Amino acid sequence: MKLIVKLGMLCTMAFMSVPVIGQQIPVAYLDVNRPVEERVESALSLMTLEEKVAMCHAQSKFSSKGVARLGIPEVWSTDGPHGIREETYWDEWGGAQWTNDSCTAFPALTCLAATFNTNLSLAYGESIGEEARYRNKTILLGPGVNMYRTPLNGRNFEYMGEDPYLASRMVVPYIHGVQSTGVAACVKHFALNNQEVWRGHINVNVSDRALHEIYLPAFKAAVQEGEVWSVMGAYNQFRGEQCCHSDLLLNKILKGEWGFDGLVISDWGGVHNTDQAVNNGLDIEMGTYTDGLTTSGKFPYSSYFLADPFRKGLEEGIYDMEVLDDKVRRILRVIFRTTMSANRPFGKFVSPEHSEVARKVAQEGIVLLKNKNQFFPIPVDKKIKIAVIGENASRSLVEGGGSSSLKAAYEISPLEGLKEKYGEEYITYSIGYASGPSLYGREEPSKYDADSLSKAAVDVAKGADIVLFIGGLNKNHYQDCEGGDRKSMDLPFGQDKLIQDIMKVNKNTAVILLSGNAVAMPWVDQVPAIMQGWYLGSEAGSALADVVSGDVNPSGKLPFSFPKKLEDNSAHFYGELSYPGDSIDQYYKEDILVGYRWFDTKKIKPLYAFGFGLSYTSFDYGDLSIDKNQASDKETVKVMFTLTNSGKTDGAEVPQLYVNKAKSAVSRAEKELKVFDKVYLKAGESKKVELELLISSLAYYDEKASDWVVEPGVYSILLGSSSSDIKSKVNLKVE
Amino acid sequence: MKLIVKLGMLCTMAFMSVPVIGQQIPVAYLDVNRPVEERVESALSLMTLEEKVAMCHAQSKFSSKGVARLGIPEVWSTDGPHGIREETYWDEWGGAQWTNDSCTAFPALTCLAATFNTNLSLAYGESIGEEARYRNKTILLGPGVNMYRTPLNGRNFEYMGEDPYLASRMVVPYIHGVQSTGVAACVKHFALNNQEVWRGHINVNVSDRALHEIYLPAFKAAVQEGEVWSVMGAYNQFRGEQCCHSDLLLNKILKGEWGFDGLVISDWGGVHNTDQAVNNGLDIEMGTYTDGLTTSGKFPYSSYFLADPFRKGLEEGIYDMEVLDDKVRRILRVIFRTTMSANRPFGKFVSPEHSEVARKVAQEGIVLLKNKNQFFPIPVDKKIKIAVIGENASRSLVEGGGSSSLKAAYEISPLEGLKEKYGEEYITYSIGYASGPSLYGREEPSKYDADSLSKAAVDVAKGADIVLFIGGLNKNHYQDCEGGDRKSMDLPFGQDKLIQDIMKVNKNTAVILLSGNAVAMPWVDQVPAIMQGWYLGSEAGSALADVVSGDVNPSGKLPFSFPKKLEDNSAHFYGELSYPGDSIDQYYKEDILVGYRWFDTKKIKPLYAFGFGLSYTSFDYGDLSIDKNQASDKETVKVMFTLTNSGKTDGAEVPQLYVNKAKSAVSRAEKELKVFDKVYLKAGESKKVELELLISSLAYYDEKASDWVVEPGVYSILLGSSSSDIKSKVNLKVE
Repeated sequence: MKLIVKLGMLCTMAFMSVPVIGQQIPVAYLDVNRPVEERVESALSLMTLEEKVAMCHAQSKFSSKGVARLGIPEVWSTDGPHGIREETYWDEWGGAQWTNDSCTAFPALTCLAATFNTNLSLAYGESIGEEARYRNKTILLGPGVNMYRTPLNGRNFEYMGEDPYLASRMVVPYIHGVQSTGVAACVKHFALNNQEVWRGHINVNVSDRALHEIYLPAFKAAVQEGEVWSVMGAYNQFRGEQCCHSDLLLNKILKGEWGFDGLVISDWGGVHNTDQAVNNGLDIEMGTYTDGLTTSGKFPYSSYFLADPFRKGLEEGIYDMEVLDDKVRRILRVIFRTTMSANRPFGKFVSPEHSEVARKVAQEGIVLLKNKNQFFPIPVDKKIKIAVIGENASRSLVEGGGSSSLKAAYEISPLEGLKEKYGEEYITYSIGYASGPSLYGREEPSKYDADSLSKAAVDVAKGADIVLFIGGLNKNHYQDCEGGDRKSMDLPFGQDKLIQDIMKVNKNTAVILLSGNAVAMPWVDQVPAIMQGWYLGSEAGSALADVVSGDVNPSGKLPFSFPKKLEDNSAHFYGELSYPGDSIDQYYKEDILVGYRWFDTKKIKPLYAFGFGLSYTSFDYGDLSIDKNQASDKETVKVMFTLTNSGKTDGAEVPQLYVNKAKSAVSRAEKELKVFDKVYLKAGESKKVELELLISSLAYYDEKASDWVVEPGVYSILLGSSSSDIKSKVNLKVE
Repeated sequence: MKLIVKLGMLCTMAFMSVPVIGQQIPVAYLDVNRPVEERVESALSLMTLEEKVAMCHAQSKFSSKGVARLGIPEVWSTDGPHGIREETYWDEWGGAQWTNDSCTAFPALTCLAATFNTNLSLAYGESIGEEARYRNKTILLGPGVNMYRTPLNGRNFEYMGEDPYLASRMVVPYIHGVQSTGVAACVKHFALNNQEVWRGHINVNVSDRALHEIYLPAFKAAVQEGEVWSVMGAYNQFRGEQCCHSDLLLNKILKGEWGFDGLVISDWGGVHNTDQAVNNGLDIEMGTYTDGLTTSGKFPYSSYFLADPFRKGLEEGIYDMEVLDDKVRRILRVIFRTTMSANRPFGKFVSPEHSEVARKVAQEGIVLLKNKNQFFPIPVDKKIKIAVIGENASRSLVEGGGSSSLKAAYEISPLEGLKEKYGEEYITYSIGYASGPSLYGREEPSKYDADSLSKAAVDVAKGADIVLFIGGLNKNHYQDCEGGDRKSMDLPFGQDKLIQDIMKVNKNTAVILLSGNAVAMPWVDQVPAIMQGWYLGSEAGSALADVVSGDVNPSGKLPFSFPKKLEDNSAHFYGELSYPGDSIDQYYKEDILVGYRWFDTKKIKPLYAFGFGLSYTSFDYGDLSIDKNQASDKETVKVMFTLTNSGKTDGAEVPQLYVNKAKSAVSRAEKELKVFDKVYLKAGESKKVELELLISSLAYYDEKASDWVVEPGVYSILLGSSSSDIKSKVNLKVE
């Protein structure tokens, strides 16, 4: 490592009139062995005002400047949470047609959440981080932990479900994994970006309690336990300020209360005001375009709010230099932790290990919802005629959906996976319906004749022993895609009718749904078997075939509730002002009662409950016991029970501990998830499971005190196989 | 550094049917602390045939594949010897319109050679290496050390002159500098690419002696002293084989005799035959296009000679796997020395230090050829009216010239530099003539009326105290540009007539030539002062103004001879078969008598001699002495003399030691340069200069023995201020 600017050799020319620049300039920031803070101060002390401002805004679609003359690299970010986005042109969204940037597509984050497996989240983070590192990226723009508030949100598939505890447990190892590769994770979208309708401006009105108990915990865990190096602001407004420059969210909560020392980057085009962008905690402004310049067609980066307007304000004394230095320190910190860190690993790209992780996540994330008469598994040696019907069996599902769209090195479709597993001769395929192409921001109607596609499929179904209908949503506009919410909870493209038509000719029909959201199931009582898959990535087909065939026993659990109908969902119960708002404001009237908290408290039966998922085997839960019946708020209680695989197949179960507080000073949800585990048991095997419950986790957010309070009294500890299937219960007194 | 593929966390799922990939895979190649050779073998052992072949050819205009799944980076190269080329589109030559890739333009290598300052060459290499490193390049495609055989060669400006010893001394520190930054230098074009006419196929016939004594020494020094990590093959043929796959040049000499362990990369499109490319020592094929596919317009990289045809031949047993492994080992070696090396520095880009080096090189490379009545310097306080005339005073000279064309962060033109130095009010500019735009591969005539431009300039000259005519060549097609040689030695665009017209109205006219080649000077006796500048890079104008004003005392020396007329040059003396050949073959009939070797031996007086250059001060040479009069071929002789700055200005002189062997078994050049030094002396200062002469350097190449032979007998050691100005002489007897 060259720590000295070597210009000694020029001293022999010292008689020349041009002054020799210097003999030995110590440059601490180049010394990878020094503490990050020392390097930050060293670099900062050498920078000009212009150089500092230049680091605070984009220079291209995905990069912002470093300090070239000092050897400080540029910051390059990449979408997204599920894979490394292809290279784009410098200042256009189009792919740059490189041939070296086809990535491993990992399953969508809903699938990762459905595994309830924190080790897999670590492996996922390591793998995607390695891919980002190999492609020389500084920041991976993910993971996303916005809460699943409504099944219509077009971007739910990028998030980790409806429960703040589940999302917290899953997000932390993902971040650790990514950042172990020398790449910064970027938790997003901070905060309350829970719908795509009017996302750029809708002003979210939500109570402090719901904010802290439901919408912030996963971000807080990302910061305090994940030690995430960057955070992306959200597009929407909160209490009248854009989230990308919200004093409350960024200065007071994130950087103040939580002590976040990394950088805040805007969502692309999420900045609207220089004063606020400067003073309310934003560090880097990225853009799609900038306001007020929409006629020219081109929006020079110099016109960004944190570009020339910021610089001018600094020069005129309107803005404090210390505010600038704080931003630059945060950006430098990320650089010294990533591209200028000691011994940055080299990463790797599209490796078999990454495929293996993608496949494991897909295998463990698939949720078996219904399995009448043991429809599944379908053993390979059974040699029956299988009709595969549905567009999602053959359509690419790694493309589309908006910014998370991927150019994958390969993608095994469900149809390919099933053919590989069962042999081509046992599989007949009929598409059944056809949607339009994958387009961002607009719908294109299908050019096919729906009737004839449907008839052909029914014919195929008629002649088969069993039918696997593989449909769902598909990342088209309005069908799980950034920039627009779904119009209803129904399956699109005539799938409901098609399923029912198939059932008329073949009762042995299972429905496999690939989606990032809950859908209505008018045929739920008619079909013998239902499987909820997700956007499963490169290994979609192989993982799905593994589960269908029984080579893998499903162990996924729903990370969000499936309501019977949209109005049963709490965001929709309160009408349009609650969702989607009046175009200016929206009000989260359901408050803390999001997801199963609502269903359980209001005693509304969901179609499928949060935490639910079947297995090919059965599990017996022994009685719950605790190591003490009474505890104070600093203590931890050990919760114990015996779990037995009582069936004939090896498998995994996710025991879930919920807590109920019957009498409370504040309104409470009927139950809240506090601990879970994933337990692997061979057929017939029993295990003593021991879980730790932190009494502090029983706290509610006290709006008056603006703090967390553990209320004394009696709590019920509930052990369940899902939020609606409680197996055992014990009381605990908290002093 | 993560040396272990961490999949341990997946072991908890070991009951799953998909096998766990491995617990701990030791991967030595990722360990930066292990020896390169160990890492090479480790990586090689993990690679498939396809992966190995993929490393041996381009995947885009400037990159070849790494092994993504193993984390082995791609190899990215960049032109050129004078600055870091802008980013291009993936598969097009056009600039990709990035805004972060405008580099520091360093002076052309002829200028660096003219400094005769090896320390500056080190600083140049370090600086350009840092720029390449900052832009994440693996290989810098330079320096070029083809010999200056004819003043018509369009690419001479990229090389280091006519003397193998000078080029050797200058190339070694350049390479050390570049490679100290974690970037591989790539010495080029190996070998005998000494003209652009028919460069793709002309077959060079040259004696073994001239090959080894004139054309190879700089390459040998690059390999053996510079320890260069990569070498680029030449476009032309040598003894019937393309140089990019010449068994003699690559296998026998470079990799055999010289022990080169790095990689050989083809010039772009320089490969023509799979068998030879495979077996004759090429490692990576880069391309403009490939042969035989010229009708489709697109030439897939898979069709390259070292792509599918190579793979097929390996699979069919036509080619030896060991040949493939040797190539891959060489490529891996370069990767482990650069992008995967321990503690690779971070580089920097467009730093003031780089500008300072560019300016120093330009200052020291400018050669004062004539200075009657002390025309120069022109002190700033003289406050006279200066007319600046000539297109090169205001034209960009970092653009053009072919692959070395640069997108510079800035370029101070001579006019700007002079205005800055003297003040705008003292400078009047008239362009005088105008050439066409800078185009590659074709001429575009000027759209201006030459007469009116000329008249306007003469008018301006008339009214000035002095005139600085700033012209020369300009990197247009046929005017110092890749892909074509000059048509004559004359100045283009009517400059000779213009100079003479100006002289008619103002005798106080100096000519400043910016070029990479010698030009004819029909006005040489009429003008009082002549300065030879070069393509001086970003700091052209400031450096030139420094020298013109006397802030810097010129110390550059010509790195090649200026003939009075083209026929005086040895390559042209023997007619067309010698240069440019008959389109198939050419014959280097002058043999070893290249440059001053020819002029001196044939007693032809050059216009300006190799090694010549004036100063604003004068130097007195004391008598030469040696520490022994007799020595054996293993010994070193110390050569001593006193050098005095006898003028009133601080300055630098380049004492040059030549050797003459009067009676010899072989024909000898009249003299050959063996040692030089650059000595800085204050006004009036004397220094004892001590130089070391290796007796082994007196050897000639014995064609029969195919080896170097030091002939016993008496040698004359000549001390000179140039090749034609010998100050002192002493005899030495070699046993």
